[in-house]
Amino acid sequence: MVINNKTNASISPKGSLATLSQREVQQLREAGEGRVYELFRQCALAILNIGSGSDNAKTLLDAHPDFEIRIHQQDRGIRLELLNAPSAAFVDGEMIASTREMLFSALRDIVYTQSKLESDRVDFESSEGITDYVFHLLRNARTLRAGVAPKIVVCWGGHSINHEEYKYTKTVGHELGLRGLDICTGCGPGVMKGPMKGATIAHAKQRITGARYLGLTEPGIIAAEAPNPIVNELVILPDIEKRLEAFVRVGHGIIIFPGGAGTAEEFLYLLGILMHPDNKDLPFPLILSGPQSSAPYIQQLHEFIGATLGPAAQQRYQIIIDDPHQVAREMAEGIKEVTQYRRVHDDAYHFNWLLKIDESLQHPFDPTHENIAGLKLTRNQPVHELAAQLRRAFSGIVSGNVKVQGIRLIEQHGPYQITGDRDIMQQLDRLLQAFVDQHRMKLPGGSAYEPCYRVVG
Amino acid sequence: MVINNKTNASISPKGSLATLSQREVQQLREAGEGRVYELFRQCALAILNIGSGSDNAKTLLDAHPDFEIRIHQQDRGIRLELLNAPSAAFVDGEMIASTREMLFSALRDIVYTQSKLESDRVDFESSEGITDYVFHLLRNARTLRAGVAPKIVVCWGGHSINHEEYKYTKTVGHELGLRGLDICTGCGPGVMKGPMKGATIAHAKQRITGARYLGLTEPGIIAAEAPNPIVNELVILPDIEKRLEAFVRVGHGIIIFPGGAGTAEEFLYLLGILMHPDNKDLPFPLILSGPQSSAPYIQQLHEFIGATLGPAAQQRYQIIIDDPHQVAREMAEGIKEVTQYRRVHDDAYHFNWLLKIDESLQHPFDPTHENIAGLKLTRNQPVHELAAQLRRAFSGIVSGNVKVQGIRLIEQHGPYQITGDRDIMQQLDRLLQAFVDQHRMKLPGGSAYEPCYRVVG
Amino acid sequence: MVINNKTNASISPKGSLATLSQREVQQLREAGEGRVYELFRQCALAILNIGSGSDNAKTLLDAHPDFEIRIHQQDRGIRLELLNAPSAAFVDGEMIASTREMLFSALRDIVYTQSKLESDRVDFESSEGITDYVFHLLRNARTLRAGVAPKIVVCWGGHSINHEEYKYTKTVGHELGLRGLDICTGCGPGVMKGPMKGATIAHAKQRITGARYLGLTEPGIIAAEAPNPIVNELVILPDIEKRLEAFVRVGHGIIIFPGGAGTAEEFLYLLGILMHPDNKDLPFPLILSGPQSSAPYIQQLHEFIGATLGPAAQQRYQIIIDDPHQVAREMAEGIKEVTQYRRVHDDAYHFNWLLKIDESLQHPFDPTHENIAGLKLTRNQPVHELAAQLRRAFSGIVSGNVKVQGIRLIEQHGPYQITGDRDIMQQLDRLLQAFVDQHRMKLPGGSAYEPCYRVVG
Amino acid sequence: MVINNKTNASISPKGSLATLSQREVQQLREAGEGRVYELFRQCALAILNIGSGSDNAKTLLDAHPDFEIRIHQQDRGIRLELLNAPSAAFVDGEMIASTREMLFSALRDIVYTQSKLESDRVDFESSEGITDYVFHLLRNARTLRAGVAPKIVVCWGGHSINHEEYKYTKTVGHELGLRGLDICTGCGPGVMKGPMKGATIAHAKQRITGARYLGLTEPGIIAAEAPNPIVNELVILPDIEKRLEAFVRVGHGIIIFPGGAGTAEEFLYLLGILMHPDNKDLPFPLILSGPQSSAPYIQQLHEFIGATLGPAAQQRYQIIIDDPHQVAREMAEGIKEVTQYRRVHDDAYHFNWLLKIDESLQHPFDPTHENIAGLKLTRNQPVHELAAQLRRAFSGIVSGNVKVQGIRLIEQHGPYQITGDRDIMQQLDRLLQAFVDQHRMKLPGGSAYEPCYRVVG
Repeated sequence: MVINNKTNASISPKGSLATLSQREVQQLREAGEGRVYELFRQCALAILNIGSGSDNAKTLLDAHPDFEIRIHQQDRGIRLELLNAPSAAFVDGEMIASTREMLFSALRDIVYTQSKLESDRVDFESSEGITDYVFHLLRNARTLRAGVAPKIVVCWGGHSINHEEYKYTKTVGHELGLRGLDICTGCGPGVMKGPMKGATIAHAKQRITGARYLGLTEPGIIAAEAPNPIVNELVILPDIEKRLEAFVRVGHGIIIFPGGAGTAEEFLYLLGILMHPDNKDLPFPLILSGPQSSAPYIQQLHEFIGATLGPAAQQRYQIIIDDPHQVAREMAEGIKEVTQYRRVHDDAYHFNWLLKIDESLQHPFDPTHENIAGLKLTRNQPVHELAAQLRRAFSGIVSGNVKVQGIRLIEQHGPYQITGDRDIMQQLDRLLQAFVDQHRMKLPGGSAYEPCYRVVG
Repeated sequence: MVINNKTNASISPKGSLATLSQREVQQLREAGEGRVYELFRQCALAILNIGSGSDNAKTLLDAHPDFEIRIHQQDRGIRLELLNAPSAAFVDGEMIASTREMLFSALRDIVYTQSKLESDRVDFESSEGITDYVFHLLRNARTLRAGVAPKIVVCWGGHSINHEEYKYTKTVGHELGLRGLDICTGCGPGVMKGPMKGATIAHAKQRITGARYLGLTEPGIIAAEAPNPIVNELVILPDIEKRLEAFVRVGHGIIIFPGGAGTAEEFLYLLGILMHPDNKDLPFPLILSGPQSSAPYIQQLHEFIGATLGPAAQQRYQIIIDDPHQVAREMAEGIKEVTQYRRVHDDAYHFNWLLKIDESLQHPFDPTHENIAGLKLTRNQPVHELAAQLRRAFSGIVSGNVKVQGIRLIEQHGPYQITGDRDIMQQLDRLLQAFVDQHRMKLPGGSAYEPCYRVVG
Repeated sequence: MVINNKTNASISPKGSLATLSQREVQQLREAGEGRVYELFRQCALAILNIGSGSDNAKTLLDAHPDFEIRIHQQDRGIRLELLNAPSAAFVDGEMIASTREMLFSALRDIVYTQSKLESDRVDFESSEGITDYVFHLLRNARTLRAGVAPKIVVCWGGHSINHEEYKYTKTVGHELGLRGLDICTGCGPGVMKGPMKGATIAHAKQRITGARYLGLTEPGIIAAEAPNPIVNELVILPDIEKRLEAFVRVGHGIIIFPGGAGTAEEFLYLLGILMHPDNKDLPFPLILSGPQSSAPYIQQLHEFIGATLGPAAQQRYQIIIDDPHQVAREMAEGIKEVTQYRRVHDDAYHFNWLLKIDESLQHPFDPTHENIAGLKLTRNQPVHELAAQLRRAFSGIVSGNVKVQGIRLIEQHGPYQITGDRDIMQQLDRLLQAFVDQHRMKLPGGSAYEPCYRVVG
Repeated sequence: MVINNKTNASISPKGSLATLSQREVQQLREAGEGRVYELFRQCALAILNIGSGSDNAKTLLDAHPDFEIRIHQQDRGIRLELLNAPSAAFVDGEMIASTREMLFSALRDIVYTQSKLESDRVDFESSEGITDYVFHLLRNARTLRAGVAPKIVVCWGGHSINHEEYKYTKTVGHELGLRGLDICTGCGPGVMKGPMKGATIAHAKQRITGARYLGLTEPGIIAAEAPNPIVNELVILPDIEKRLEAFVRVGHGIIIFPGGAGTAEEFLYLLGILMHPDNKDLPFPLILSGPQSSAPYIQQLHEFIGATLGPAAQQRYQIIIDDPHQVAREMAEGIKEVTQYRRVHDDAYHFNWLLKIDESLQHPFDPTHENIAGLKLTRNQPVHELAAQLRRAFSGIVSGNVKVQGIRLIEQHGPYQITGDRDIMQQLDRLLQAFVDQHRMKLPGGSAYEPCYRVVG
C-alpha cells in the first residue's frame, strides 16, 4: 500500500514483547500517550529513516507531519499500526526485519520498560538502586547473556569525523572482528558505525555467526543519531548517565577514537570511575587510538589529563597511534585479563558488578547556568571527584552546542561561565580551542563556531 | 564426595535465574528462610529422589533429616549448596541435568516468583487479576512460547491406576506423539507418566526434537507426587486453583483417563468453565477414555454428569472406549479447530485468554467442615455454578482422604456433612461408592476405606 | 488410502539419496531388479513391520504376498512407491519418519552403495582393500563424524534372552546414557534393544540431544531381527564379516552380555583381533557382564577362553557381575584411555585405523561340511589364529541352527564334524552343551534341540 | 611463527575432506604432485593473498618463490603444511577461517575431485555424461541442497568496471538481498564482488542467516581473479565450459551487468542455450542492467543481438536501466515462475536438469588460429548454433587479450582472422570497436589497445 512514498502497515512484535498479558498491553497503550507518545513517535521516525542520511530530528519531523504510530490491543497481544510511514523502510510492502526489531526495541525501552520499572520500586536515591535499574533495563532488553565469555569492545568517538579517521575506525573494527570480538557503540554514524562495519566483514571471514553489534543510546540522541543499519541490538537508556553506566558495565574494554566535547565527556566519566580508590586493582582495558593525522589531537588530550588529573590517571590507558593490529592485540590481551579477574572474583561476565561508580557520576546533571557556574574545578579534592566535575563541564558544553534546550539557555543567558583553579582553566581553554580549530565542535548552522562557554580562570 | 550415599554439591542455575541482579539474589536469600525454606527443602528432597519409587513426603523427610539446601549469593549470581543430598541424584559426583533444572524450577517458583510477584501489585480480588497472576507465573517459567502452533494435550487421571489402565495411557500417549502433539500432566506417576512415556518413544520415531513434557504441580502435591523423570518443564503453581487454571489456559485439549475423587474434581472444574454461557461457542476438545475394563467407570461418570448437570453438559465431551487411534485422531482434529478459532479471533496460541473462568472457580476453597456444609448442591442455580459447587465437594473429599490438614480435621470433627437436593445427593453417593468399590479412593493406611464424608440427602 | 490394513504410498528421500544425478537414479532402478529386488523387498517389509513383534522373515513374506516396492525416476530424483504396505507403518496416511528413513537406508545400502561401490575398484583381495570398503560403506551412510569425541559403546549378546537379563541390559544402558555414551548394537530385539532403551531415558534426563542409537546389520539378519524402533541410524553391511569389522572399527568399547553361539562367535572374533601381536598395546575396553543369575554362564565362557586361548587372552577383558554402575564407570574410563591413545597417535576418532585385523577374519567363511571339517582347531599355531578358527566353528553352528541354507545342508549331509586337539574339543563340547542346557541355542521348531554338529575329539 | 612476513602453518580440513580413507589420502598425495601441484600451489597463493589487491598471478608467484604447500598423510586423515605463506592470511598466528575453507576447496576441486572423478567412468563424449560430471563436481562441493526453494541469482559482468557501475551493482545486490535472494558470481572483483557486498548488508538488515555467496571459477582464472572475501562457497570447475554450465544449472536467474568480451561470451553462451528449441517453454529470468551512463553500452549489445540472432532472441531477456528496485522485483517474480515450473515438472530445485545444453556448448573450445578461422558465422544455420559460434569468437578474443597461451599465439601468428556473413561481421566489428572505445578491453600493459583479431567481412 504505497501512497506517495508513504506506507501504512501493521506489525507484531518478536522478542520480549511477544508474550504480554492483557493488562500489560493496556498499560502500554495508556503509557504511550501524551508526552511519551511524542517521544516514541520521534524515535520511530528516526528508525524508519535509517540510511536516509538525515541526522536532524527537526527535519524529519517536518518532512513527515502526518506520520502516526498507534499501539493496538488484541487478545493475541500488542500490535503497532503505522500511518504514512516512510516507504524506504519497506520492501515490496513488508517492513525490513531489522527496522521492525528496532521499532519494538523503542516501544520496549521508551514506553514499556520505563513505565513498568518506574512504577516498580526503583530506588533512584542510592547508587545501588540506580545500578540495579540499569541492570534491569539491560536484562529486559536481553542484552545480558549468562555464561558467554567476555568479548564486548566499546568504541567511543565523534559522530562527524573526517574520512581518514572513519577509515581508521573501520580497520580497527576489522582487526577486532578477526579476533572474534563484538562491538558496542553509541549506534549512530562516524565512530559509532566504522568499527561495526569493519567487524562485520571480519566476522564473515572468520565464519562467526551470532556476532553482536550493540547500540546504546538515549531518547535525546536517537533522533539526531539514528541507529546505523548494522546495529543488531538496540537499547534506549533513559538518560545520558544511565547510558554511560550501561557502557562501562557491559563493555569489557573501551577504545577511544578522535571526537569532540562529547568524547571528552565520556573519557572523563570513565577516568572518574577508574581513579576511584575502590577500582584501583580492577583491570579495565582502555586504549586511545587514531591514524597518524590524529596524533596531535590525542597528544593534546593526553596532556590535558596529565595536567589536570595527573600521571596516575595517565597510567589507566594506553595510546596507540596508527596501528590497528596493535590496538586489537592489546584489547584482546586486556580482555583475557578481565576474564581471568572475573573468574577469580566470581563476578558475572555479563555485568561488571565489581566496578564502583560514585553516585556523583550516576545522577543526571542538569546544565543550567547556575549548575555550570557551581562546578568545583579545583585541585583540593580527590582526583576522581575532579574528573567527575570536569565531566559535567563538558556535558554542559555538549548541551550548549547541540541540544535544543541547551541552545535556548545560551540564547537567553549568554555563554556559560566556567571557573576554577587558574591552571586547570588554562588547560581547559587550550583543549577547547583546539577542538574548535580542528572542527570537532559541531556547528548547527555551518557558520563559524561561537563558543557557548567562557572559561574564567 | 560420596559419604554414606550422601553427597554434597554446589550448583549454578541456567534459564531465568541465570542473570539476577545483586538485589534479587539478596531478596531470594531472605525469602528462602523460615516457612518458605521448609517448603523449598521438602520439594527439593522430592526432586532429588525422583525415580526412587517413594511417593510419601513424610518418609522422605524422615529418611534425610540432615539434608540441607542453602542459597548463596556471589557477584556472579545465585548458587545452591546441598548438604547430605541423596546420592542417587548424581552420576560420578555430578548432578543429573534434569534434576538440576527441576531444583532451580522449584527455587524459581517457590521462592523467587512468588516473593517477587506477590510484592508486586497482584490483584487477587478480581478474576482478571488472578488470571494475570497465572499468566506471569507461566511466563516467568518460560512456558509461554509465542508463535508456536497449538499442540499441548493435557492428560488428567489417577496417580495410582491399575496396570491395564496404565498401559492404555501409554498407548494413547504414543498415538498423540505420532501426531506431533506434546503432553502436559500433573507430573507425577500413573496417568501423569504413562502418556509422556508413550509420547517419548513416538516423538523419537517421528524424529521430533524439542518435544515438551510439561508438568504442572503445586507445593502440597509435589512431595507426594514427585515429577517423573520424563518431565522436561516443571512449573509449581501456588495452589490447586492456580494449577487448574494453568492447565486449561495452556492446554489446547484435554483427555480424562480413569481416576478417583481428584479426577472428578478436575472434570467438574472444567465443566464448570465450559458450561459458562460466555464459553458457549468456544471450541475445547475434551475426551473421556480408558480401556474396555474401565468402560463401566466412565459410563458411571457420564451418567452422573447427565443426572446432575444435564445433557447439555454431556455434549461438551466425547467418550471413546479402548481406541487409542481414535482418541488421538479426534484430539488432533479438535486442536485444528482450536487453532482456526484462535486465528480468527486473534487470540494467542500460548494462552487461552478468551476462556471465561468464573471467580468462584478461581478463589482457593478451604475445605473446613463449615465450608463443606455450606455448599449449595441444588438445582435452582445455573448449571455452571452447580458444577463449581460439586467441584468443591470433591475437593473436600480429596483433602479429607489424603492431605495432612484434611485428615486432621476429619479426626477432630468426624466426617464432612454434604447436603443438597435429594437426587443430586443420591447420584453423588452412588458415584463415590463406586470409587470405593473400584479401589479408586487412596487408602493412607491400606486398610478398608473409612469415608471422610456423609452424604445427607 | 487404507484398504484392508494395507496402504499405498509414495515417498521421497532425505539424506545422502536426496541429490542423485539422473544417471545414478537410472543405475539404481536397474540395480534394484532381480535378486537384489527380492532382497530389498524383504528388508523393506521387515522395516515396515517394526514393532509388530514378528521376527520371522518367512511369516512376514507369506502375510504380504502382494506387497511391492518400486523405484521411480523423476527429474527431481528418486521416489519409492509402495503398494499394499502394512498400514501400521503409517499415521493418518503418512509414513512414520523413522520408518521412511530406514527404508532409504535399506535402499542406500542394499541397492545403491553396493552396486556403486562394487562397480568401483574395490580390492577384495587385500586386507587394506576390505577395510577401505567397510570405511566407504560407513561413510556413505554418514556414520563417520569427524571431530566428535569417542563415545560409542557396542553391546553384543543374545536376541532372545530372559526377562531378568533383558532388564539388566536396560539398566546398564541407562548408566551408560547417564555418562553421555551412545549405543551401537546389532539393532534387533533382546540385548540389541535393552541398552538403547535404557540409554534413551538417561539421555533425556541428561538433556542430551543428538544421541546416537546405531544399528549395524546384514541382509540375512535384518528380516529376522528387524531394527527396533529406537535405532536412529541403520547401516546394512553386505555380510557377517563386514558387519563385525564395522562394529570394532566404529565402536570405542564393547560390552558382551549373555547370548548363545552367535555371541560366542562375536567374542572369539574380537579376541582373535586383540590377541594379534600388532594390537598388543592398543587399548580396547572389553567387559563381560550380566545379572547374578548369569554368573555361571559368564564363568563358563571365561574358563573356555582360559583353557583354549590361555590367560593372556583373559587379560584383554574384565568380568563385572551384577553391577551396572561399575560397568558404565569402567567403560567410561576405558574410553578416556582410547581417546588419549588416538590423540597421541593421530588416529581418527571416528574409525579405528590402527586396529590390525588379520585377513583370515575378513574373508567370508562359507560353512560347508568340507570347510567345517577342515578347521584347524589345534594348539600348534599362534593364539590369534586359533581364535579365528574357533570363530569359524561357531559361525558354522549358528548357520546350521538358524540360517535357511545351513539347515538345508545339515538335512542333506547330517551334522558337521568338528575335529581338533582333544582338550580343545572337550572344552568346546562342554560349552556348547551348556548353551543347550541354558536354552541359549535357538530352536526353530520349539522341540528339543537336535545338535547340528558333532565334536570329534 | 612469523618470519619476515612469512608464516609456516599446519591445517586440517573441515567439510567433505574431513573423513578420508587412508587410500584416498594416499591418492591425494600422489595426485598432488607434478603439474597438478603447480596448479594447486598457484591457486593456494591466490587464496592466501585475498584482499591484497593484486590480481596478477605472475606477480604473486614472483613475490613468493619459496612458498610451498605440502599434503601430509596421517592416520587421522589429511593435513596441509604451508611454508613461507603470506602472513596476511593469519591472525595472531592462526589462519583466517574463510581462507582455510577456500584452501581446502581448492584441494578438493583441483586435486581430489578431479583425480577421483576422472579415474571413475566419466563419459566426456556425451552431453549427458558432461552434465553428469558437472553435477558430481557441484555435489561433491556440497553446493546442491535438496529442498531449498530457488533463490540463487547469478550476476555476470566485467571485473574492471568503473566506479559508478560498481556502485550500481552494489545497489542491485542490496535490493536482491532485501528480497532474500542469494548471489552467485565468478567470485573475483568488480561485478563479481559488488552484488555480494550489497547483499551482505541487506541480509544483515533482514536478519537472514545462512545466506550464500557462491563463487564459481576455474584454475586459469582464480589466480588472476582471486575470490573476494565475501564468497562463502568456492567451487573451482575444471574449465570454462564446465563453469558456464555450472552457472546456468545452479542459478535460478541471471543478471548481466556491463563488461567486455568475456561478458559478451557469457551472454551469447546463455542465448545459445535459451534459443534451443527444446528450451522454448522453459522460464529463465534474464535481465540486462546498468546505471544511466551504461545505457549506450547495453543498447549496443541489444542491437547486436537483434541484428545477428533476431528479435526472438531479444524476447528472452529484459533491459532495465538505472532502476535497482525494478531489477530485483522482476528477478524475484521470475524466480517465482521458475519455482512453479519446477514444481509442476518435478524438476529439482538445486539443479536445472530440464535445461537442454547442446554438446557444441559443452566441449572445450581451443582458440587456435585454425579453429577461429573455421568458425561458421553465417545465417544458414539455426539461431542457437550461430549463437554458439559467436560465443567461440568471443572466447578467442578473451584468450588473445589476456590469457598467457592466447597472447603467445597472437605474437607468433598475428591477429585471428574472423570471417562470416558480411552484415554479421559488420555488427561484430562495431561492437568490438565500442568495447575498445569504452575501455572494456583489458590492456595487459596499459598502452593503447592493439586488437588481437581482424574481422574479415
